[in-house]
Amino acid sequence: MSSKLPIGILGATGIVGQRFIQALEHHPWFEVAWLAASDRSEGRPYAEAARWRLKTAIPKDVARMTVAPATPKGAPKIIFAALDASIARELEPQFANAGCAVVSNSSALRMQADVPLVIPEVNGDHIKLIDTQAWRRNSGGFAVTNPNCSAIGLVLALAPLHRAFTLETVMAVTMQAVSGAGYPGVPSLDILGNVIPYIANEEEKMEEETQKLLGTLSGSHIDPAPFAMSAQCNRVAVEDGHTESVAIRLKKKASAEEIIAAWNRFHAEPQQLRLPSAPEQPVVYMTAPDRPQPRFDVDLGAGMTTSVGRLRKCNVLDWKFTVLSHNTIRGAAGAALLNAELLKAKGYLG
Amino acid sequence: MSSKLPIGILGATGIVGQRFIQALEHHPWFEVAWLAASDRSEGRPYAEAARWRLKTAIPKDVARMTVAPATPKGAPKIIFAALDASIARELEPQFANAGCAVVSNSSALRMQADVPLVIPEVNGDHIKLIDTQAWRRNSGGFAVTNPNCSAIGLVLALAPLHRAFTLETVMAVTMQAVSGAGYPGVPSLDILGNVIPYIANEEEKMEEETQKLLGTLSGSHIDPAPFAMSAQCNRVAVEDGHTESVAIRLKKKASAEEIIAAWNRFHAEPQQLRLPSAPEQPVVYMTAPDRPQPRFDVDLGAGMTTSVGRLRKCNVLDWKFTVLSHNTIRGAAGAALLNAELLKAKGYLG
Amino acid sequence: MSSKLPIGILGATGIVGQRFIQALEHHPWFEVAWLAASDRSEGRPYAEAARWRLKTAIPKDVARMTVAPATPKGAPKIIFAALDASIARELEPQFANAGCAVVSNSSALRMQADVPLVIPEVNGDHIKLIDTQAWRRNSGGFAVTNPNCSAIGLVLALAPLHRAFTLETVMAVTMQAVSGAGYPGVPSLDILGNVIPYIANEEEKMEEETQKLLGTLSGSHIDPAPFAMSAQCNRVAVEDGHTESVAIRLKKKASAEEIIAAWNRFHAEPQQLRLPSAPEQPVVYMTAPDRPQPRFDVDLGAGMTTSVGRLRKCNVLDWKFTVLSHNTIRGAAGAALLNAELLKAKGYLG
Amino acid sequence: MSSKLPIGILGATGIVGQRFIQALEHHPWFEVAWLAASDRSEGRPYAEAARWRLKTAIPKDVARMTVAPATPKGAPKIIFAALDASIARELEPQFANAGCAVVSNSSALRMQADVPLVIPEVNGDHIKLIDTQAWRRNSGGFAVTNPNCSAIGLVLALAPLHRAFTLETVMAVTMQAVSGAGYPGVPSLDILGNVIPYIANEEEKMEEETQKLLGTLSGSHIDPAPFAMSAQCNRVAVEDGHTESVAIRLKKKASAEEIIAAWNRFHAEPQQLRLPSAPEQPVVYMTAPDRPQPRFDVDLGAGMTTSVGRLRKCNVLDWKFTVLSHNTIRGAAGAALLNAELLKAKGYLG
Repeated sequence: MSSKLPIGILGATGIVGQRFIQALEHHPWFEVAWLAASDRSEGRPYAEAARWRLKTAIPKDVARMTVAPATPKGAPKIIFAALDASIARELEPQFANAGCAVVSNSSALRMQADVPLVIPEVNGDHIKLIDTQAWRRNSGGFAVTNPNCSAIGLVLALAPLHRAFTLETVMAVTMQAVSGAGYPGVPSLDILGNVIPYIANEEEKMEEETQKLLGTLSGSHIDPAPFAMSAQCNRVAVEDGHTESVAIRLKKKASAEEIIAAWNRFHAEPQQLRLPSAPEQPVVYMTAPDRPQPRFDVDLGAGMTTSVGRLRKCNVLDWKFTVLSHNTIRGAAGAALLNAELLKAKGYLG
Repeated sequence: MSSKLPIGILGATGIVGQRFIQALEHHPWFEVAWLAASDRSEGRPYAEAARWRLKTAIPKDVARMTVAPATPKGAPKIIFAALDASIARELEPQFANAGCAVVSNSSALRMQADVPLVIPEVNGDHIKLIDTQAWRRNSGGFAVTNPNCSAIGLVLALAPLHRAFTLETVMAVTMQAVSGAGYPGVPSLDILGNVIPYIANEEEKMEEETQKLLGTLSGSHIDPAPFAMSAQCNRVAVEDGHTESVAIRLKKKASAEEIIAAWNRFHAEPQQLRLPSAPEQPVVYMTAPDRPQPRFDVDLGAGMTTSVGRLRKCNVLDWKFTVLSHNTIRGAAGAALLNAELLKAKGYLG
Repeated sequence: MSSKLPIGILGATGIVGQRFIQALEHHPWFEVAWLAASDRSEGRPYAEAARWRLKTAIPKDVARMTVAPATPKGAPKIIFAALDASIARELEPQFANAGCAVVSNSSALRMQADVPLVIPEVNGDHIKLIDTQAWRRNSGGFAVTNPNCSAIGLVLALAPLHRAFTLETVMAVTMQAVSGAGYPGVPSLDILGNVIPYIANEEEKMEEETQKLLGTLSGSHIDPAPFAMSAQCNRVAVEDGHTESVAIRLKKKASAEEIIAAWNRFHAEPQQLRLPSAPEQPVVYMTAPDRPQPRFDVDLGAGMTTSVGRLRKCNVLDWKFTVLSHNTIRGAAGAALLNAELLKAKGYLG
Repeated sequence: MSSKLPIGILGATGIVGQRFIQALEHHPWFEVAWLAASDRSEGRPYAEAARWRLKTAIPKDVARMTVAPATPKGAPKIIFAALDASIARELEPQFANAGCAVVSNSSALRMQADVPLVIPEVNGDHIKLIDTQAWRRNSGGFAVTNPNCSAIGLVLALAPLHRAFTLETVMAVTMQAVSGAGYPGVPSLDILGNVIPYIANEEEKMEEETQKLLGTLSGSHIDPAPFAMSAQCNRVAVEDGHTESVAIRLKKKASAEEIIAAWNRFHAEPQQLRLPSAPEQPVVYMTAPDRPQPRFDVDLGAGMTTSVGRLRKCNVLDWKFTVLSHNTIRGAAGAALLNAELLKAKGYLG
């Protein structure tokens, strides 16, 4: 019998659910024990219920698992959630209330005052918010979230600069991959040979999540980071990888060398604790003049490393650069998994 | 015998050269009379020398024309130039010196102090710089240029706002079509499923050209517009149409309604003079929340209309919006053609 | 008041419905008078109900029309139908039964013995089958269909050869555009950088429809053409235009020149009657070694001309060649419209 | 000091050259010792000379290697060649003549009577042709080739059927990835949203190579396989992976089960000898109705497994099916590497 911790996945048939299953296939601590999805999938073998969209094959034992109803009854104590926000808003509290550790990728609870929104390299200390949750007191359950796929790469690139030089202003324009919209997601007739300059609610999420992530834990709440932040979000014909053109102003002026060093040297608790999914380098600066590019760089660090490039002076703010991050790994399933690993390392998973 | 003015095209086999030929097929004032291209093409019938990349067929009479050597001897007095900058730097002065009106799409002379860089709707008065050119005095020849394909759509969107409210700051991030790089241009292995966050010299051109175009003619030179301007340029897998995410700060504060009205009401000399290639509306604001998009909107106004959308508040500057412009029509061949039409209307073409 | 014949469109919000509206905008004989779609759209203005996916704008009067319920009550006598097969199977007979002329693009009734499956240039005489329909006798109504988008280009290319040289064997492999699957249709995650070697039921339709179209009217039924026919269907990342690699064996041996002449000279009733949507040349042979290509040739003859190229010897059968046809114009809306024009010319539309 | 055999690569900067370097990074028998490319690259560090287009990084020691002149002087005894045919025709004999074992991916020598054209799983015995080469007698050098990227996947799928049931007729239509054309290769303006129904000389190569590969060694020459073979070749907007729609007629009739079993059970010398690059299963039949697909299946068996699917009856020949093979791994660098491994196992590499 396995000594690994059993994991349940809510929303197991979607793109992020599939990435959870892929990431857990050879995981040293966790194993997939329970899968739930929409009513339509319930009772069917996973391999039939899911339209698998990854290059690696469905792990054989998972392929045969029967999709369970999406209720806490019979579910394991640790739940990875990859649900649409509207469903998550209803289901995630049910699971937390039933005593589950809900590690969520959805946006439903991210901005709730007592729910930590966490990137382990950036604000692992926010996890303490768990102790203020009513679920925690009542049933032992709790909820932790990771940010939107467009915010996480940006925040990983900003965090070392904010620590060292203090951000005053951030402007980001995204060019986001279609996998960020799930499956079936973006119709091909909408995106072939096209750019869509709009993703519903995405700019608002990026702006408020960035400030919460770089904010300060103050007793039982987070003071958002006080810098000004503006985002513009576009969809492009890329399968995986969100690219972002970023401009920043810093309070403490810094040279290009200092900024690049801050990125390359950046590491934090996940690296020190050697969490299984932590990349050796969370942020890498690429020196080639035309990188990073999603087609070639998205899988860096098994999709967990954020790549940065093209640092150059800005005529309006101080600096401009390009950020690339894998939107369904570092921006979704890998983010939640790393959160779970941090939770386990800190003793929250029993 | 035709009473139309004979036109010569330098760089006739490239993508912009093809667009010139396409645009002149049924032109009421001009007709193609002479085609020149690289040595490799010289002496061959145009249909063989060019790798035609447009949906409409090569006009039959042009197909049979023989590609001439790229020297002023035997060339008509009006030359449309679509050359690489390095070649243009050498050839365009030769033609101006020989008495030709050189209407150029290349970047070679754009920033030269006595060469007008013109968008007829924006700064048609800059054409007077011609009178300061040595070529003009010596031979009657002169050179006029149009801006880079990434600058022109932006400047058309900015001009009405700059007039009414005065720009203080402009930040633009582009997502540019592959046709902007000519043919063969961007290899498919570089752009399929990818974003390239770099186009050589493009950001510099966008920044300085925008300020020259919105600058003020002061005697024999242009005072560049004094606002701060920063550009970031990306290549995406789109055939035609540069999309740009723009943020601006205005000196005189304006409401969304006032800004949209400034765009929709914008018209200028080309519309008043009913120049043949002038679009009825140079700028159109699209109200749908997810437009403009290159796939659907690039051909607006026969490719001469710039479309704008998504006007919304910016947390850092004042306003954010999206601009789309056809890069090989309004951004290249159509731009030069409209310049030529303005020159004719103003009596510069004899 | 208009003297044009009022047209109703069933399935007006889909891609083919949109193509009907586009094609009818300036039609000399017909005008859009009534639009119906799914329950979800009913009662809403068309511009809101449809997700318009074409480059030309929605005609203004159509934009304001209210989407009607999909029942014969209140519908005009001529109905263009662009419904999914499952819905068409139910609705089309209702409209025919109510006295409507149903000109359908769906597959529901195509293979029904008394329903003509027609390409006006190929088998206009099959229209007489109408007279055998019970609907016709009972209410005056009737149904006429056009073939699948993958069959129609092929059959236009085959018809002149079958007439002149008699087909013995046909093998076709398709590379079909995503617009053939409607909207939202093919998810971008399925097709970016991909080929899907499967389209449900498509091969069966191509095979049986080709034989019915090239078959012979014999009293009250069609004897299918007796040649052997095999199809393989693939989906590729192309917006519009089905490309097909075809190989054939002919009973009467023919030279390349004879075959090409048969294509280029091919014309029939629609051309003789000068039907408004009939292309001047239904089939054009392109001599360039690498044409036709969807990106450049799909709009030939306003999307109604089938282009053929690369005729060369086959080691197994006699000849190989490439066929290209616009799948939502000649392969759908344009096909039905041309059928309607033929019906009017023959007196079937009152 | 390494005990691995030193390998030289001719054409090291191209796409196939890069795949050689990638495949040799952790190879147990061979190591990259010498790199040559065009004059333009000579004398420069490899990392500067090559435009690296793969997702994995350039191996560090290779990155620093200096590109050597493309002459046998100073080159190792084993040469992997990835040259354009015109250059290969000149250089490959020079190296063989100088005593090198030339393991070539180019088409230059493939059809030369005394040069083995080999797929180790299919016709490893053809290697004996080496002994008839003049180079071998004179200097010990020799040349061995692997087939065109479009032929190899097809032949791997055909070989088990030819052995068991004897092929009478083969028809194949390809949809080939852009990486097959090298770098810069296919311009993006040619292939975005497009299909190109032509690849120069490709159909001829597929036809003659297939027959040589499945032919019989008879003393000092190969009798080509006597079945009829016809190919049609198309380029599509796919990065890696050639998909083919195939139809065959068999002499000995077989059921679907027998055919599928022949594919799945197929293995040969490379599997028995456990050659390092041999896939466990050279051919895999996929049961899903819409597979194989390049986006999801191209990397099967580290790019060395050919996947087959959609076996179904053909109305003209006996059977139809779809084949997918990685064109720059199994179709180029991996093919040559497996040839080299077989040569070493058979004692040809000293």
